[in-house]
Amino acid sequence: VPPKVIMACVKDFEDYAYKYLPKSALDYYISGSNDEQTVNDNIKAFKRYKIRPRILRDVSNIDTSTTILGYKISFPVCIAPTAMHGLAHDEREIGTCKGAFRAGTAYTLSTIANSSIEEIAESNPNALKFYQLYIFKKDKSVTEELVRRAEEAGYKALFLTVDSPFFGKRIADEKNNFKTPAHLKMANFESLKGYSRDGVSKNSGSGSGLGEYSRRLFSSSVTWQDVIWLKNFTKLPLVLKGILTAEEARKAVEIGVSAIVVSNHGGRQLDGVPASIDALREVVKAVQGSNVEVYLDGGVRLGTDVFKAIALGAKAVFIGRPALFGLAYDGAAGVEKLLNILKEEFNTSMALAGCRNVRELQTEESLVVHESYYSRL
Amino acid sequence: VPPKVIMACVKDFEDYAYKYLPKSALDYYISGSNDEQTVNDNIKAFKRYKIRPRILRDVSNIDTSTTILGYKISFPVCIAPTAMHGLAHDEREIGTCKGAFRAGTAYTLSTIANSSIEEIAESNPNALKFYQLYIFKKDKSVTEELVRRAEEAGYKALFLTVDSPFFGKRIADEKNNFKTPAHLKMANFESLKGYSRDGVSKNSGSGSGLGEYSRRLFSSSVTWQDVIWLKNFTKLPLVLKGILTAEEARKAVEIGVSAIVVSNHGGRQLDGVPASIDALREVVKAVQGSNVEVYLDGGVRLGTDVFKAIALGAKAVFIGRPALFGLAYDGAAGVEKLLNILKEEFNTSMALAGCRNVRELQTEESLVVHESYYSRL
Amino acid sequence: VPPKVIMACVKDFEDYAYKYLPKSALDYYISGSNDEQTVNDNIKAFKRYKIRPRILRDVSNIDTSTTILGYKISFPVCIAPTAMHGLAHDEREIGTCKGAFRAGTAYTLSTIANSSIEEIAESNPNALKFYQLYIFKKDKSVTEELVRRAEEAGYKALFLTVDSPFFGKRIADEKNNFKTPAHLKMANFESLKGYSRDGVSKNSGSGSGLGEYSRRLFSSSVTWQDVIWLKNFTKLPLVLKGILTAEEARKAVEIGVSAIVVSNHGGRQLDGVPASIDALREVVKAVQGSNVEVYLDGGVRLGTDVFKAIALGAKAVFIGRPALFGLAYDGAAGVEKLLNILKEEFNTSMALAGCRNVRELQTEESLVVHESYYSRL
Amino acid sequence: VPPKVIMACVKDFEDYAYKYLPKSALDYYISGSNDEQTVNDNIKAFKRYKIRPRILRDVSNIDTSTTILGYKISFPVCIAPTAMHGLAHDEREIGTCKGAFRAGTAYTLSTIANSSIEEIAESNPNALKFYQLYIFKKDKSVTEELVRRAEEAGYKALFLTVDSPFFGKRIADEKNNFKTPAHLKMANFESLKGYSRDGVSKNSGSGSGLGEYSRRLFSSSVTWQDVIWLKNFTKLPLVLKGILTAEEARKAVEIGVSAIVVSNHGGRQLDGVPASIDALREVVKAVQGSNVEVYLDGGVRLGTDVFKAIALGAKAVFIGRPALFGLAYDGAAGVEKLLNILKEEFNTSMALAGCRNVRELQTEESLVVHESYYSRL
Ligand SMILES: Cc1cc2nc3c(=O)[nH]c(=O)nc-3n(C[C@H](O)[C@H](O)[C@H](O)COP(=O)(O)O)c2cc1C
Ligand SMILES: Cc1cc2nc3c(=O)[nH]c(=O)nc-3n(C[C@H](O)[C@H](O)[C@H](O)COP(=O)(O)O)c2cc1C
Ligand SMILES: Cc1cc2nc3c(=O)[nH]c(=O)nc-3n(C[C@H](O)[C@H](O)[C@H](O)COP(=O)(O)O)c2cc1C
Ligand SMILES: Cc1cc2nc3c(=O)[nH]c(=O)nc-3n(C[C@H](O)[C@H](O)[C@H](O)COP(=O)(O)O)c2cc1C
Repeated sequence: VPPKVIMACVKDFEDYAYKYLPKSALDYYISGSNDEQTVNDNIKAFKRYKIRPRILRDVSNIDTSTTILGYKISFPVCIAPTAMHGLAHDEREIGTCKGAFRAGTAYTLSTIANSSIEEIAESNPNALKFYQLYIFKKDKSVTEELVRRAEEAGYKALFLTVDSPFFGKRIADEKNNFKTPAHLKMANFESLKGYSRDGVSKNSGSGSGLGEYSRRLFSSSVTWQDVIWLKNFTKLPLVLKGILTAEEARKAVEIGVSAIVVSNHGGRQLDGVPASIDALREVVKAVQGSNVEVYLDGGVRLGTDVFKAIALGAKAVFIGRPALFGLAYDGAAGVEKLLNILKEEFNTSMALAGCRNVRELQTEESLVVHESYYSRL
Repeated sequence: VPPKVIMACVKDFEDYAYKYLPKSALDYYISGSNDEQTVNDNIKAFKRYKIRPRILRDVSNIDTSTTILGYKISFPVCIAPTAMHGLAHDEREIGTCKGAFRAGTAYTLSTIANSSIEEIAESNPNALKFYQLYIFKKDKSVTEELVRRAEEAGYKALFLTVDSPFFGKRIADEKNNFKTPAHLKMANFESLKGYSRDGVSKNSGSGSGLGEYSRRLFSSSVTWQDVIWLKNFTKLPLVLKGILTAEEARKAVEIGVSAIVVSNHGGRQLDGVPASIDALREVVKAVQGSNVEVYLDGGVRLGTDVFKAIALGAKAVFIGRPALFGLAYDGAAGVEKLLNILKEEFNTSMALAGCRNVRELQTEESLVVHESYYSRL
Repeated sequence: VPPKVIMACVKDFEDYAYKYLPKSALDYYISGSNDEQTVNDNIKAFKRYKIRPRILRDVSNIDTSTTILGYKISFPVCIAPTAMHGLAHDEREIGTCKGAFRAGTAYTLSTIANSSIEEIAESNPNALKFYQLYIFKKDKSVTEELVRRAEEAGYKALFLTVDSPFFGKRIADEKNNFKTPAHLKMANFESLKGYSRDGVSKNSGSGSGLGEYSRRLFSSSVTWQDVIWLKNFTKLPLVLKGILTAEEARKAVEIGVSAIVVSNHGGRQLDGVPASIDALREVVKAVQGSNVEVYLDGGVRLGTDVFKAIALGAKAVFIGRPALFGLAYDGAAGVEKLLNILKEEFNTSMALAGCRNVRELQTEESLVVHESYYSRL
Repeated sequence: VPPKVIMACVKDFEDYAYKYLPKSALDYYISGSNDEQTVNDNIKAFKRYKIRPRILRDVSNIDTSTTILGYKISFPVCIAPTAMHGLAHDEREIGTCKGAFRAGTAYTLSTIANSSIEEIAESNPNALKFYQLYIFKKDKSVTEELVRRAEEAGYKALFLTVDSPFFGKRIADEKNNFKTPAHLKMANFESLKGYSRDGVSKNSGSGSGLGEYSRRLFSSSVTWQDVIWLKNFTKLPLVLKGILTAEEARKAVEIGVSAIVVSNHGGRQLDGVPASIDALREVVKAVQGSNVEVYLDGGVRLGTDVFKAIALGAKAVFIGRPALFGLAYDGAAGVEKLLNILKEEFNTSMALAGCRNVRELQTEESLVVHESYYSRL
């Protein structure tokens, strides 16, 4: 068992994962697609935004809490849906969900998981859980079944991922000939022949098993019509994950979704798209006046990243890889620890910027500006 | 024989070539001129453009095909004319042409080749072939002969390279005292004394043999008048290769050429000119309203590079060095493999950006923007 | 005793400190908070400003002197308040103050010091001394006592630090489990149980002792009302240290403070705020018309940094870390030496820019411009 | 004797000098002042400008020649005045002048030289020679004597250096305790006690001998009045070297100088001023309409650097360090070789940009643009 060293920031968890995860798991987690322009820019882009702090306010009581889709969370950082937590820790998705719950925030389960919808719900009955949906090929029965199961298991929203008609090419996975280890299952598909683990482990012998799986099974013909159908089909609020432009955001508002996640899928789908924090502003402007909530994921690693996203108009942010690193470090406890570090950092950044609650972040004028602000003066 | 490792992207072919090509051949292929500002910027510049993807469209059927000069190609990537394929592989230009044909796209033969116009045509009768022309000194007979031979051999267009009154200085070639190996011939000039291989191998003993050759034999007095003459002389559509400004593009439209290649010759001629993707936009704007097609070459290495160039107004792009790396890897099969990887990457980028055919790339508003778009918001 | 090598610039003192200070002391001095974006940008930002020199003026007599709050100083560089000089040299704050005095400039004592208000005053009766205040929790008695003691000891101004309701997170300190060594005391609090050294050395066993101390003892509820109270309570001119925006600067002017320090606490508080030289200009513009003086600290390492700050509207600048490096090098003599090097560099930059006195720096048109000036031409 | 390797570009001479010059000589030559921001930016700035080439012009006859102050030179690159050529090669300034003459261009002699005004003139009677003046302290007799000697020896212009009331601080020289070796003299001052070599070799024991020399002997009170006096005193055209702003350029035009050198003294005087190519444009604009010629020096290393400067309005450029590297490589022959390489590069860049003579460079619209041109499209 590797030693548990002092953890002071998200980077420490990342370093830990780099050191102790098996190469093919680590590569699967960290890779972006193709040239990795976007995955790298996601991180760097945050540094291009500057905080203009307010001072001399009573910040002895900072309230980091906010709501997401009406549900209270302890701070505006939730867990993004990521596949295959079994590669990080035996506690799998169950552990991640538990960590999020203990830290007072929401967890989003990916369709591609090593724990099932029901397992997670049973182990974490009181956790705030969302369900992320990929739409599968052929008739709609698979989708319908997944949605109903999520509803019944008490998940509170459906996140439809709209940037993935199939998976982007991640070079390392191709070279590692990535497939799921024998002991891990596609937990949501145990009964569904062809959709199960076999679908991932039995690949054509070269390239990424998951890439192949997505191309064989995901529907790549999903349209706005299907979204309308889904919205009517489910009782749950519908969230579109993976919007990067004002044009598409406006359409989402039109058809009445509950929320949008500005996301480039952690730089794993279309490489060369803008960093999410860069894309955020045009989306926020586009939905103004509606009551559609805007979230962001991609590159959030610091309390100040959270601060910047919220100040630029996001209602909450999601973390993908950091949660996996937390899980790898120490299961549920690791996820909780990481979230609490982020919460404390966010709290500190609020206090030091003179913002006592999340509302103030959202209403202060020019609290966060693009660095070009300073070259235009 | 070096091992054929997993090839997942163009970079893998480049790495292979760096490892296995003899130094002087590799240097000849990769060098830019002088300080290599432009050859490096060609690559970096693509990363300054960002894709703004469309979502929720039925992308189950992506059609990557398009036309070039009216001829159908499987995707908008053709082979740029590059000299001396014999340095890469015994199959020489014949192999490159075959690889392009198998991948469903066009091949452009350089005047400076180790296979002749006729050899290539005979081995690849059904391939879509273009012929690239350098104009030689003295009377026009050499030029006339080359043009007629290309016409008769079934080449479908003449690419006149307009950025090379003689070759730029490539430092590595100077230091390597570069000359063509004894077993390679200047295949198009076997009968023409002085223009043949001897012209390249017998240099003054220092510097680049090819540089010297070009200064001794190329005409550096070609003008727009000569282009008009050539246009009238040949039955083939005339394409000007090497335009980087709106001013010159407008002149090309005026005299009625069929197409323009925005190109800086892979950074091998005038160093310090803009990256081709940077220059593309002013050229596209300048020809608007005419039916002159605009192509681009220089720095294309990724499916998203192709995507960006097409979205910014190019009808097709050409690859120079990548084709040489493909050839070095495995002859015709290597070229085909590389092209198919690029095609698949382009296909993926279209799907993930919600574009079902090339026409949509060309008509979507602000599909690709310069990164400064995000600092101006 | 480490050798005293040739010292030609501030960087040389920094190199010396890096080599000879114990790791935990060095880390404490050099760290910025969190990701260290701001501490690094403080340095880099100065290089983004360019001096447009005047020529052919009689610069045989350069007068670098200026005033701060009406007091004459030999050049516009003073010592910023920094904690714990005992970690650098046995002469502690007494040495730093002496060095500043000998170089003809002002010294600012931090509340968190290893020499007391009175000790320093007794050893340096004629030095120009300012006192920096942190406001402590509970009733105002601690604050009142500190202010009265500073007044009585002959300090000439109160610097209220407004960016620190508690300390930022400095990762290295967390990992070093930083605490004050046994032989060093919190000299201003010897009588005050809980505020003394014990408060810092007895931490919860993990993390930074000073971080914890600040959270336990500093008041984080200080507001503009308290500033007004303080202004009325003290006979001394009141300076607000840690303003980065026009909005807050205008408020400071309104309530009638004497001066403002544009500062991000050397990148140790809120990470991700602008470099101080970037923030300077909007603050200068905001106070225009008032008689509030504007100072700057953060990243000043060169005579030209001083020049740029003054030309952009600062009345004086302060140095934090450099003074600590000077002290580490050779006590008071080291501080004096370092200040004299900076003075000579500033003198030189004035002469070479054709400015004979500080007034000219402040009045010449466009003497210093942002680098973007040259891309807009 | 070190081997004479293949020399293909200026960088090769630089590499040679780095390898074979004694450290203190090399340091003296290459250093910039202080933080070396400007000396580095001089080089990098050229890469920020892009050439927009013209094509299809008859470039079989390129005329690189131009005039400077009415004198014909073979191409617009002259030798800038630099001190102490004896550190590079036994041929000293005599060799440098000879190299320039053989390459068909002008040589500028520094006041601080190891060969005298007369020696150089006698060895190079037909060379086009300019004389660079520093004005010395006390009465004007030293200056008057130097000017008369230059006139009599056939120098064709006076370059008054206006950026050096004394020398900037070059850290390496300080640390090397730089002084002139015993065998080298201050050749122009053999009769003048105190101004001679002794003045440089006998320094206070620390720091740069030359820095001290300049502070002790140069006049730092030279003003525009003195320039007017000098203009009237000499029969020679007067050139001001070291102007970086439109304001000062306009004054130079007013008092009727013949030419201006946009120069930051190779980054050796005031650090933090703009790169010379950045400053060029505002100076060119400021003198428009007058017949004052504008030159540039600083960072010219490539034929395309020359091209860019001329296209942006310079009548000629000067090289400082490259000439020293050429001299170090092989005396006069090395200087000639280096100049011929630059000439050939310039010739090539003209041909490849479609410019047949220098006049065309100066009149073509937008031939060279700042890189920001491409982000504004
Ligand atoms: C290993 C991994 C697996 C992922 N799996 C999914 C998934 O199954 N469904 C989905 O919508 N997004 C998936 N994502 C994208 C995340 O939801 C999220 O957009 C991204 O990780 C955010 O970027 P970050 O990792 O920089 O925080 C995955 C991301 C990673 C890194
Ligand atoms: C080794 C090499 C040889 C070339 N030879 C020719 C040639 O003979 N004729 C020509 O018009 N362009 C020639 N080019 C330029 C290419 O047609 C093309 O403009 C360039 O390679 C595109 O850049 P890329 O290599 O980054 O794709 C050559 C380029 C290379 C790299
Ligand atoms: C080690 C250290 C301790 C500091 N302690 C204090 C302090 O006690 N009070 C305060 O107002 N600022 C403090 N500062 C901030 C400085 O006053 C000043 O803002 C900063 O050091 C300026 O940046 P510079 O170090 O780049 O010059 C401290 C800074 C450092 C580096
Ligand atoms: C070693 C050295 C000595 C110099 N000496 C003088 C000098 O005596 N007089 C002068 O006006 N400029 C002097 N200069 C500045 C040059 O004239 C010129 O401005 C500068 O070298 C141009 O930059 P470059 O070296 O990048 O070409 C000197 C420069 C160097 C590098």
